[in-house]
Amino acid sequence: MTATGDARPSETYSYLGPAGTFTEAALKQVPEAQGKIWRSVNNVGEALADVTTGRSTAAMIAIENSIEGGVSAAQDALATVPGLRIVGEYLVPVNFVLVARPGTALADVRVVNAHPVAYAQTRGWLERHLPDHGHIPAASNVQAATSLFADDSNADAAVAPPGIVDQLDVDVLAEGIGDNPNAVTRFVLVSRSLRIPPRTGADKTSVIVELPDDEPGSLLAMLEQFSTRGVNMSLLESRPIGDELGRYRFVMDLDGHIEDERVADALLGLRRFSPGVIYLGSYPRADRREVEYHSKYDDEVYIEARDWLRGILSGEPEV
Amino acid sequence: MTATGDARPSETYSYLGPAGTFTEAALKQVPEAQGKIWRSVNNVGEALADVTTGRSTAAMIAIENSIEGGVSAAQDALATVPGLRIVGEYLVPVNFVLVARPGTALADVRVVNAHPVAYAQTRGWLERHLPDHGHIPAASNVQAATSLFADDSNADAAVAPPGIVDQLDVDVLAEGIGDNPNAVTRFVLVSRSLRIPPRTGADKTSVIVELPDDEPGSLLAMLEQFSTRGVNMSLLESRPIGDELGRYRFVMDLDGHIEDERVADALLGLRRFSPGVIYLGSYPRADRREVEYHSKYDDEVYIEARDWLRGILSGEPEV
Amino acid sequence: MTATGDARPSETYSYLGPAGTFTEAALKQVPEAQGKIWRSVNNVGEALADVTTGRSTAAMIAIENSIEGGVSAAQDALATVPGLRIVGEYLVPVNFVLVARPGTALADVRVVNAHPVAYAQTRGWLERHLPDHGHIPAASNVQAATSLFADDSNADAAVAPPGIVDQLDVDVLAEGIGDNPNAVTRFVLVSRSLRIPPRTGADKTSVIVELPDDEPGSLLAMLEQFSTRGVNMSLLESRPIGDELGRYRFVMDLDGHIEDERVADALLGLRRFSPGVIYLGSYPRADRREVEYHSKYDDEVYIEARDWLRGILSGEPEV
Amino acid sequence: MTATGDARPSETYSYLGPAGTFTEAALKQVPEAQGKIWRSVNNVGEALADVTTGRSTAAMIAIENSIEGGVSAAQDALATVPGLRIVGEYLVPVNFVLVARPGTALADVRVVNAHPVAYAQTRGWLERHLPDHGHIPAASNVQAATSLFADDSNADAAVAPPGIVDQLDVDVLAEGIGDNPNAVTRFVLVSRSLRIPPRTGADKTSVIVELPDDEPGSLLAMLEQFSTRGVNMSLLESRPIGDELGRYRFVMDLDGHIEDERVADALLGLRRFSPGVIYLGSYPRADRREVEYHSKYDDEVYIEARDWLRGILSGEPEV
Repeated sequence: MTATGDARPSETYSYLGPAGTFTEAALKQVPEAQGKIWRSVNNVGEALADVTTGRSTAAMIAIENSIEGGVSAAQDALATVPGLRIVGEYLVPVNFVLVARPGTALADVRVVNAHPVAYAQTRGWLERHLPDHGHIPAASNVQAATSLFADDSNADAAVAPPGIVDQLDVDVLAEGIGDNPNAVTRFVLVSRSLRIPPRTGADKTSVIVELPDDEPGSLLAMLEQFSTRGVNMSLLESRPIGDELGRYRFVMDLDGHIEDERVADALLGLRRFSPGVIYLGSYPRADRREVEYHSKYDDEVYIEARDWLRGILSGEPEV
Repeated sequence: MTATGDARPSETYSYLGPAGTFTEAALKQVPEAQGKIWRSVNNVGEALADVTTGRSTAAMIAIENSIEGGVSAAQDALATVPGLRIVGEYLVPVNFVLVARPGTALADVRVVNAHPVAYAQTRGWLERHLPDHGHIPAASNVQAATSLFADDSNADAAVAPPGIVDQLDVDVLAEGIGDNPNAVTRFVLVSRSLRIPPRTGADKTSVIVELPDDEPGSLLAMLEQFSTRGVNMSLLESRPIGDELGRYRFVMDLDGHIEDERVADALLGLRRFSPGVIYLGSYPRADRREVEYHSKYDDEVYIEARDWLRGILSGEPEV
Repeated sequence: MTATGDARPSETYSYLGPAGTFTEAALKQVPEAQGKIWRSVNNVGEALADVTTGRSTAAMIAIENSIEGGVSAAQDALATVPGLRIVGEYLVPVNFVLVARPGTALADVRVVNAHPVAYAQTRGWLERHLPDHGHIPAASNVQAATSLFADDSNADAAVAPPGIVDQLDVDVLAEGIGDNPNAVTRFVLVSRSLRIPPRTGADKTSVIVELPDDEPGSLLAMLEQFSTRGVNMSLLESRPIGDELGRYRFVMDLDGHIEDERVADALLGLRRFSPGVIYLGSYPRADRREVEYHSKYDDEVYIEARDWLRGILSGEPEV
Repeated sequence: MTATGDARPSETYSYLGPAGTFTEAALKQVPEAQGKIWRSVNNVGEALADVTTGRSTAAMIAIENSIEGGVSAAQDALATVPGLRIVGEYLVPVNFVLVARPGTALADVRVVNAHPVAYAQTRGWLERHLPDHGHIPAASNVQAATSLFADDSNADAAVAPPGIVDQLDVDVLAEGIGDNPNAVTRFVLVSRSLRIPPRTGADKTSVIVELPDDEPGSLLAMLEQFSTRGVNMSLLESRPIGDELGRYRFVMDLDGHIEDERVADALLGLRRFSPGVIYLGSYPRADRREVEYHSKYDDEVYIEARDWLRGILSGEPEV
C-alpha cells in the first residue's frame, strides 16, 4: 500500500496485492491513480466491497486472461453486486521471470515455487531448462517469490511477475519464461460513479444479459439484436446463474459506446428482450483502436430515420 | 357517375367503373363516400392520377386477389407515384352470376362472353353445365354483360358480378358460379391525406421496401427487422424495380399501426436498412381482427427500455 | 408453324405465336429446335398442355419480364401442372418498332394500335414524337401489326416486335422506341424430360415452395436454408396459393445446379421444411455467367464432412 | 485406490481422489466400474493422461457445476487432448457437511478449514451459525477434513462432502449446509473407446467448435446450424483458444444422439462451417429425460427428403 500525503480518504484504489502483482502493474497504467492511496486486498470480492461501501474510489480487477479465459469470480461479482461500473480497461502482458535468493545459479535450482496458473504457463520453459525440477504450489505469484525467504523454504527459485524486483531482493535467473509470448491479461477499473466516460470512438460497452428462458432460439435471438444493428461483440462468456443447471447469463463486450446510436439501439433491444440486463459501462478500449463499422450504421443514419418517422407521425410530407 | 346535390367538388371518389364492378362494391362499404360524387375511371393509373391532381378525394383500387395475386399495376403505381397513402382496406367476395338477355334459358346458351380472369374463375362451373360452350373474351366484367346488348353480339350469356342486375335489364341464369367459394379481392382506399387514421388495435401498416443490393442475405436481413420486434407480415410481394433483371422491391403489409411501438421501431430499422422505403399508411384491417402479438412486444416494454436507457445516459442509478 | 421435312412428329416445339413474337425470338435461340416443327399456340396454358399430353417435346414460355415482373400465369401453371421441367433459359431484349402500312410517314400517324403492355413500355417515346396520338389496344403484339391490314382498321401505325418485318409487309417508322433500353424478358424451355441437363458451372435451379403455415418466422426460416449453405437466390416471387387470402407459395431461382453439393443440401433442407416443394429443374443460365460462391461451400467441403461423419459412425479414429 | 482380485489391469477407472470426493460419488453411479480398480489422481490432467496412455479404461471428471460454471481445465483438456470420448454423464448433488474431531461441539468451533469453493458455497450457513469463525483454505474438500488430524492443525471443523464419513473418524456437526439446495455438479466419464454408446432417445452429444474467424456474424451462423435442424443446445460455454485475446472455442452439448438424423445433419453443417470441430461423443443423459423435438425433425423426414432427392437425380418421376 502506497500512500501519498495529500490524498483525500476517498481517493483510494483497491487492487489484488501485494505490490508486484500483475494487477498492480495494471493500476500503474491509470493516470488518475498516480499519487493516490493504493489499497492492497486479497481477492476480487474484497476489492469490489471496497468500492460498494465507498472505502475506495475504484478497484482494479482481472476480467479476462488470454490463457485462462474469463475470470469467473470477477464476472460473477459484476453480475450480482449492484451499482458497479467499469470505467477503464487495461492490458498487462503476462510475462514471468524466474527469481532466486541472491547468489543462486540456474544450475542450482532443484525445486521451483509457483502459483499453479503461472506454473502451467511456464511449464514448457521449465521442462526444457530444468528437466528434473520439482514444483511447490504457491497461493499467489508474489507469495511464490516471498516464500523463498521463509525459514522453512524448500524452494530454490520462484516464478514471479517482472515487477517483483521492485519489492524483493532477488536475482533474476531468466526473463520471459512464459510459454506464450502473446499472453496478456485484461483488467478493468471498477467504480461506483454513474458518470459515463466520454465517447472516444475507440470504446467498449460491457453488459451482462440473462436469456429469457431455456427455449432453443433465445441465444440466437439475442445475437440478432446486435447483428441487425451492425454491432460487433469482442467478448461472449456464458456464466451459470447458479440456481439450476442449464441456466446461463452472458457477459458481453460490444464494440462502441452507449452514446453511439447503434449501440444505444442494441441496448434497447436487449433490455426489451431480456428479463435481466446489467449495463456495466462504456469506456475507452485499452488498445485505443478505433471501432470499425459499416457506414450504414452511422449515427446520422439513425438520426435521419427518427426524423423520417417523426415527420410521418406529425403529418409532414415525406422528402 | 353518381352525383348528389350538396357535395363539394373535392368530395369525389374515383373507382374502376362502370357501375356494377367489384370495385364499386368495395366503395359502397365506405361510409364517408356515401352521398358524395363517385367518378368512374378506366384503370388504376387514372384513379391514382385523380388523387394526385386533387380531382378526387380518394380512389378505390384492387390491391390483392386471393386467386390472381398482387395486382401488379396497383402495386407498381403505389411504388412510383409519390404522396399517396392508404387510408382503408375493404374485402369483396369474388362471386359471379351468369346473365343473359331477358327470356334466355340456360339450355339456349352456346356462347359466353366473359373477361378472361372471370372466365378462368368460373370455368369449372361452365364446363360442367355448358360443356359445349364457346368463349368470347371481354375487356371487363361489366363490358361482358353490356356486350349482350350490342348489335353485333354473338354471345348468349355473360359472366358478371352480382351488382350487374342494378345496372342492366338482364336475367340471372345462375348465381354463385365461381369455382372457389372463398375467393375474395382486397381493395384499398387511397388518398393524399397525410393524417394517419387513428390506431384501433386491429390495424395494418403497408410499406414498399427496396433491398440494399443484390447480396445474398439482404432479404433475410430485412425480415429480421420484423422478427426481432415480433411484427408479423400478412403480405409479401416482390415486384421488379424495372431497371434490370434481378432487382426487386417488396410490397409488405405488417400487422399493427405505426403508433404501435414495435411497428414504429421496425419502420426505423427498415429505413436505416433500405435505400428506399415508402410508407403507404396505417389503417384498420378490413376484418377488424385484433392484432395478436406476444406481450414482450407491448408498448410498455418499449417505453420502459427507453426510460432505462435515458436513466443510464443521464447518470441515474438503475432500479 | 414452321415444319421441316425430316422431323419426327415428337420433335415439336410449342410457343406463343404467331411468328414474330418475342417468344418466337426466344425459340430461335435453341439449337436443338432448329429444323423441327414449331407449333404456335395462343397462351401458356395451351403450350404446357402440349407438353404434358406429349404433343410437343417442349414449350417456350415467358417467365419473367424486367418491366412486368413474374408472368403470373406461367408461374402458376408450373406450380400446378405436374411433371414439367425447365431445361433451358433464354433472354430476349424487349425492343419495339413502330410500323405502318407501306407508304405511311411518321407525320401521318394519328392512331396507334398496341398491346397494352407494349403501349406502357413505349408511351414515353410516343408522347414525345406523337403527342396527339390515340391508342387502340390489341390482344397481342403481333395482332397490333396485323390489324393494320384489317378492312375496318382505324389505326395508322402499330407498336410491334422487331421480328414483325419477317412476317408482314410493313414500313418501319422508328426503331428502338422502348422507354427502357435495358428491358429484357426471360423465357424458359419446358419439357417432360426427367433427364437433368448436365452441370456447367453456370447453372440455375428453379423450385416452387409452399411455406409450412402462416406463422411469423417461416419465410425467414426458409431463407436460412439457403444462407447457411451459401446458396444465392436470383429470383423470389410470391404467388397466392389461391385457397384463401394470405397463403403464398414462392417461386425461386437458386444459383447453381442440383448436382452442386450445396444446392442439393439446400434442396434437402427445403424438402424437410416445406409441406410442398416442386423441383422445376437445373439448367444453364442464359448469360452463361459462372456461379460465384465462397470456397467454404465447395463440393469438397461437403464430401469431406460426410467422410468425417461416416468415420465417426463407423468407429474410426479422427484425423 | 480400491482393487478387486479378478480385475484385469486394463479395467481401471481414474478419478479425482482421494476417496470421499464428489468425483468418487459420481464414479459410484457407474455400473461397469463396480468391482474394478479405481485409481485416485490429483487433477484432471492426470486423469485424462491415464486414459490416453491406456493406463485406465476411463476417467471420471467434473465438467460443469451449477454454481461454479464450466470446469475450465476439463473443458480445455478435452479440446486439446486428442482421442478422447465422453461415454456417460452423471449428476452429483453438491451437498456439504460440517465435520470435526470426535467430541467437538458446534459451539466450540472457532476456525473452519474449507476449500475456497466449498467455503463460498456454505458461507451463508457459516455466517448465520458461526458468525465469528475464521477460515483456513484447504487444497481440496477431502484435505479440509484430513487436515483436522494433522499435528499442527489450527482448525476446529471442516467443510466436507457427505462421503467423508466413510473415510475418516469424524463427528458430523451439521448436514446440508450448502447455501443452494439445488446445487449439482455434472460429471462425465471419458474413455478412448471409439464405439459410440447406443441411442436411447434420451441422449446428449458433446462437441467443441472453433469459430471460423473474428467476423461479426460467425457465432450467429453457427447457432443457425442448429436452429434450422431443430436441435436444442443444453450447454454453451466459450473458452479462449489461448493464442490471443478475442479468439474462442465453444463447448456445446446438443440434445440428441449422432445417430439422430437431425443431429448428424447439424454435425455435418458444423464440420463444413468450422475450421476445427471436435466430436466428443454421444451418450445417455444423466436425467434419462427423453429429448423433445418437433416432429418435423423426425428421422423419417430426413430419410424421405433424401429419397426424394435421389429420385430426382436418377430421373424418376416425383411422387
